[in-house]
Amino acid sequence: MYELGVVYRNIQRADRATTDALAALGSATVHEAMGRVGLMKPYMRPIQQDVQVSGTAITVLLQPSDNWMMHVAAEQIQPGDIVVATVTADNSDGFFGDLLATSFQARGARGLIIEAGVRDTKVLREMNFPVWSRYVSSKGCIKATLGSVNIPIVCAGALVTPGDVIVADDDGVVCVPRAMASKVLDVATAREANEGAKREKFSSGVLGLDLYKMREPLAAAGLKYID
Amino acid sequence: MYELGVVYRNIQRADRATTDALAALGSATVHEAMGRVGLMKPYMRPIQQDVQVSGTAITVLLQPSDNWMMHVAAEQIQPGDIVVATVTADNSDGFFGDLLATSFQARGARGLIIEAGVRDTKVLREMNFPVWSRYVSSKGCIKATLGSVNIPIVCAGALVTPGDVIVADDDGVVCVPRAMASKVLDVATAREANEGAKREKFSSGVLGLDLYKMREPLAAAGLKYID
Amino acid sequence: MYELGVVYRNIQRADRATTDALAALGSATVHEAMGRVGLMKPYMRPIQQDVQVSGTAITVLLQPSDNWMMHVAAEQIQPGDIVVATVTADNSDGFFGDLLATSFQARGARGLIIEAGVRDTKVLREMNFPVWSRYVSSKGCIKATLGSVNIPIVCAGALVTPGDVIVADDDGVVCVPRAMASKVLDVATAREANEGAKREKFSSGVLGLDLYKMREPLAAAGLKYID
Amino acid sequence: MYELGVVYRNIQRADRATTDALAALGSATVHEAMGRVGLMKPYMRPIQQDVQVSGTAITVLLQPSDNWMMHVAAEQIQPGDIVVATVTADNSDGFFGDLLATSFQARGARGLIIEAGVRDTKVLREMNFPVWSRYVSSKGCIKATLGSVNIPIVCAGALVTPGDVIVADDDGVVCVPRAMASKVLDVATAREANEGAKREKFSSGVLGLDLYKMREPLAAAGLKYID
Amino acid sequence: MYELGVVYRNIQRADRATTDALAALGSATVHEAMGRVGLMKPYMRPIQQDVQVSGTAITVLLQPSDNWMMHVAAEQIQPGDIVVATVTADNSDGFFGDLLATSFQARGARGLIIEAGVRDTKVLREMNFPVWSRYVSSKGCIKATLGSVNIPIVCAGALVTPGDVIVADDDGVVCVPRAMASKVLDVATAREANEGAKREKFSSGVLGLDLYKMREPLAAAGLKYID
Amino acid sequence: MYELGVVYRNIQRADRATTDALAALGSATVHEAMGRVGLMKPYMRPIQQDVQVSGTAITVLLQPSDNWMMHVAAEQIQPGDIVVATVTADNSDGFFGDLLATSFQARGARGLIIEAGVRDTKVLREMNFPVWSRYVSSKGCIKATLGSVNIPIVCAGALVTPGDVIVADDDGVVCVPRAMASKVLDVATAREANEGAKREKFSSGVLGLDLYKMREPLAAAGLKYID
Repeated sequence: MYELGVVYRNIQRADRATTDALAALGSATVHEAMGRVGLMKPYMRPIQQDVQVSGTAITVLLQPSDNWMMHVAAEQIQPGDIVVATVTADNSDGFFGDLLATSFQARGARGLIIEAGVRDTKVLREMNFPVWSRYVSSKGCIKATLGSVNIPIVCAGALVTPGDVIVADDDGVVCVPRAMASKVLDVATAREANEGAKREKFSSGVLGLDLYKMREPLAAAGLKYID
Repeated sequence: MYELGVVYRNIQRADRATTDALAALGSATVHEAMGRVGLMKPYMRPIQQDVQVSGTAITVLLQPSDNWMMHVAAEQIQPGDIVVATVTADNSDGFFGDLLATSFQARGARGLIIEAGVRDTKVLREMNFPVWSRYVSSKGCIKATLGSVNIPIVCAGALVTPGDVIVADDDGVVCVPRAMASKVLDVATAREANEGAKREKFSSGVLGLDLYKMREPLAAAGLKYID
Repeated sequence: MYELGVVYRNIQRADRATTDALAALGSATVHEAMGRVGLMKPYMRPIQQDVQVSGTAITVLLQPSDNWMMHVAAEQIQPGDIVVATVTADNSDGFFGDLLATSFQARGARGLIIEAGVRDTKVLREMNFPVWSRYVSSKGCIKATLGSVNIPIVCAGALVTPGDVIVADDDGVVCVPRAMASKVLDVATAREANEGAKREKFSSGVLGLDLYKMREPLAAAGLKYID
Repeated sequence: MYELGVVYRNIQRADRATTDALAALGSATVHEAMGRVGLMKPYMRPIQQDVQVSGTAITVLLQPSDNWMMHVAAEQIQPGDIVVATVTADNSDGFFGDLLATSFQARGARGLIIEAGVRDTKVLREMNFPVWSRYVSSKGCIKATLGSVNIPIVCAGALVTPGDVIVADDDGVVCVPRAMASKVLDVATAREANEGAKREKFSSGVLGLDLYKMREPLAAAGLKYID
Repeated sequence: MYELGVVYRNIQRADRATTDALAALGSATVHEAMGRVGLMKPYMRPIQQDVQVSGTAITVLLQPSDNWMMHVAAEQIQPGDIVVATVTADNSDGFFGDLLATSFQARGARGLIIEAGVRDTKVLREMNFPVWSRYVSSKGCIKATLGSVNIPIVCAGALVTPGDVIVADDDGVVCVPRAMASKVLDVATAREANEGAKREKFSSGVLGLDLYKMREPLAAAGLKYID
Repeated sequence: MYELGVVYRNIQRADRATTDALAALGSATVHEAMGRVGLMKPYMRPIQQDVQVSGTAITVLLQPSDNWMMHVAAEQIQPGDIVVATVTADNSDGFFGDLLATSFQARGARGLIIEAGVRDTKVLREMNFPVWSRYVSSKGCIKATLGSVNIPIVCAGALVTPGDVIVADDDGVVCVPRAMASKVLDVATAREANEGAKREKFSSGVLGLDLYKMREPLAAAGLKYID
């Protein structure tokens, strides 16, 4: 349940080095390291291709068709943050365009995750300001009703607390709770470490059936080969 | 994000009398009393008509196509609870049918809210066990992977903490945080109090334009009448 | 394109007797009589079952999550009207509930068609105030931004001009332009006239293949029967 | 893929007694007996409530917005059949209404399953002619292009061969291949047999945890109870 | 409501210079200049990236899975036109491919907007013939039933009258009524004029809170900052 | 209906030369040559742009959120195959990523068609391993329940038998039954043959109305030109 009309100024951000290190691992490896949780729903799609980022979350609760709080959020951005925004109802309007992106980028934001629409997507790509959104829409917003900034929000099915780590790439968006970031980085790094060896084996023709020793459990489960 | 493989046995339930009193007010009045937040997304639909209930939340985190944790949850139910379940990925399978409903009902559960599918809907209606779900599907589940019971979950876009009050009716489902239940009841009751008088006025032909004194602000906003 | 901030008070309503006569024919027969056009998209669904109505259209253009203009529209209702409402963006919020329904009913409205959400559906059914909507949602609205009343609108893919005839039933909603209402009534009535005879024949086992003399054109099209 | 412009007249229907016996078991029990396969997608919904039927499949391949082949199919219906129809592209139009239903019913059909739209739903309910469809729409069809009757079709994700058994109820639709019907009936009946005993135990407060001896495997999987 | 089986040959096109000038402003700025209306629904997506065009509308009403009228429309195209097509029912088939595109391009068309499917998208991109559609699909069409050309149509929720100005880019599609084109150009140009200055300010770190003087109204609305 | 827990090792693949020749014709021309059938639903979208492939089908039936059978399938791949996978229920999880792609590619697979989700899309594009899927999602899978390999499956509405020819490009995916591949190639090639001549005519300004001699049938159907 959301507290309305508030802006929390002093949030605890996840450790910078840990946050930054998670970008290279990507959303798939990171969410696996968390036990396969923390992902936003797959309808959150990037407006650009082949971009992979991480950052600390600034959260924004918006009212339908009203982007007033985006301007309030801008002031809370610190370098290395990613803004995560949600609306109190499903809404496809364009809450964000090139002017806000210029402002966010000037403040040091690394990207935007928004369960709503965005516009000026061509310019956003040219600016290298990455965005993951549910919709793309030219439709503009009004500035009339208060939401909040830096309260815990639900965005695309994931709970995001201000200061959590966001990792986003072509495959989706994952939120790592601040308190777990360091441990998740360790697990994800370990997981990633033997990916190279595996890839080489697969590349040489070794089968997962043998690499992962699956033949016995498959037989035990009753798998039958028919010639 | 989600803690996996745990069952919290001692949850703090919202006050019983307060919880029960919220049922009569309905999801619309209750969410208005909270500042128009706390609602689940409108794709959560009742499998029955004209039922309005409230209860304290038992939460369940399920794995896709796996309803093992529903049986674990059954043991945690106390009379007056409503079970609220979500899955780690979108899934339309039938996680719940007449046998589990019989078990839940025997434990005193008042209903089920599930962001997934249910089956045996005809029998569930005959049993007077109300359900709000995203899907209806005959598809059965396996019992192979752990989720959790009584951790905070996101269900249909709403954050639900064990012990929170759930109010559900034909219009949707709202979650009232335990700490706010008493205040929300007061505000909602006050709100409801003058509905009767308003209804009578509307019924006699008085317009909202006059009852709510909207003519002046509409004119100020520039509304023009053209004959 | 919409004119904003205006209310047209003097609209030309379709002939009352013609309007009323169209109700009995239903949306399927009426749209067939129009050449298979004029239907709203099938996502417009009734909140009640087995109700069939017709009426003259009062149109409302709403802003997202803002139902201010519904109160403005109430004043323009005359007995026999049906209110048809659309929003400038997709929006599932509940723009209409039992109080507005009481007001509309007191003014003589026969129903509401809305490409958005409604609430208090249980009470609306009890009041016998029929509604066709895209969504059902408890979510309330603000009253902050002007739309318009009685301008031509697009509702669920159909162009509706104030004063047009609306026919709605379990199968959908059709809009008959005022100028065509009389002719459509004639064609639809003629069409309906021989339905009884056809039904009797089908009931006695006669096939459409023979009744409609389809065997020859099917053979000409190349249909092959294989034993 | 689909053979076009053909009608197979001599299809092998599943055994009548077996087909009829499957109705009482319902779609959930039957698909479980098949190993949890054979279900149509959950977007196939009944237009009526609390109806449970079975029958042998007559299949129809339709062209978009063209219901010509429904009339061709009518002639192939024998008492106890259920017509299963699909379209070569997604289409929400109303391919079926009260006249065709009268014809189908006169031929002995028990219902219709159609991955498209239907209309006259009020009358269909009054006629007790059950329908499961993807859409409801008043929109009418033309009669211009050939499809086929009684070829194997894909309907809502399930492969249906003429003569297969269809079981449909409030929870969905399942297709049982003719050759498996007898065995599926045996397994489903056995499955159903001990449902009564289970229901009684659940009703008396016994938990699934104990009834299904789940406590040990849950502990082995690592489930932790926290007080 | 649609007039069927007609082709209007003499349409009034919006002024060419005005039409052309609107392209550079883009769909977001243009719809803002119109009061935030006139946009098609956001499910209309470009098959190419980074293309921004404007043109005068030739309208086409199609029947489901039938692209006969596209050939009729081709003859009505004049250099600078954009073809806008809709179907009498939702339909994802491919109504348009490289041959029709070659024909349209030879006639001087600048693009296609279609609430349905298109195919040969790779070739269309190579030809630099921009398309905005609801679907992409290989599925072909028949040529059997009449629709119309150059009647007012509803496309993706927007009313389009032949000769109106269409502006389309990565963010969506907007329709400017012919009579308003000149005024909309003025307002949009003025709006665009101070975008550069704003962008510079945002770029230098000035906040929207200060640039738009929002701090006072936010405080008046009750916004609270919490440290 | 699906046989579970089996792997068919000896499948009959369509002729290699025929299979390879179909790639150049593309999904639109090939499905037209089949009588406008055999297409998967248009929600199957490529993760890359401008790739057109053909291959012989290896089929995989998966269980929800479980990609065990993908590893079993890998062993059955021969050079020139395309893997076609479906799930027993709608599921958006990522069943396939860069490691499996490395394995599939090492075995000679030309691509993957999957009615579910995939991940590592950036790497898949870099590897030139083309994929058509319904979803993109980082969400990982478990390996616990048997499905099958090389049984006939329904994928995105199309029946695919192992050894059939799959043709996929930017417009969609079509399945050509093995027995028809040679004839379809002939028809499609003939169809393609006069496309060049047609394109040239369209390019020179000739209208489809004249090229296809449509003026007379249009007039016969009642088309009216209004000046």
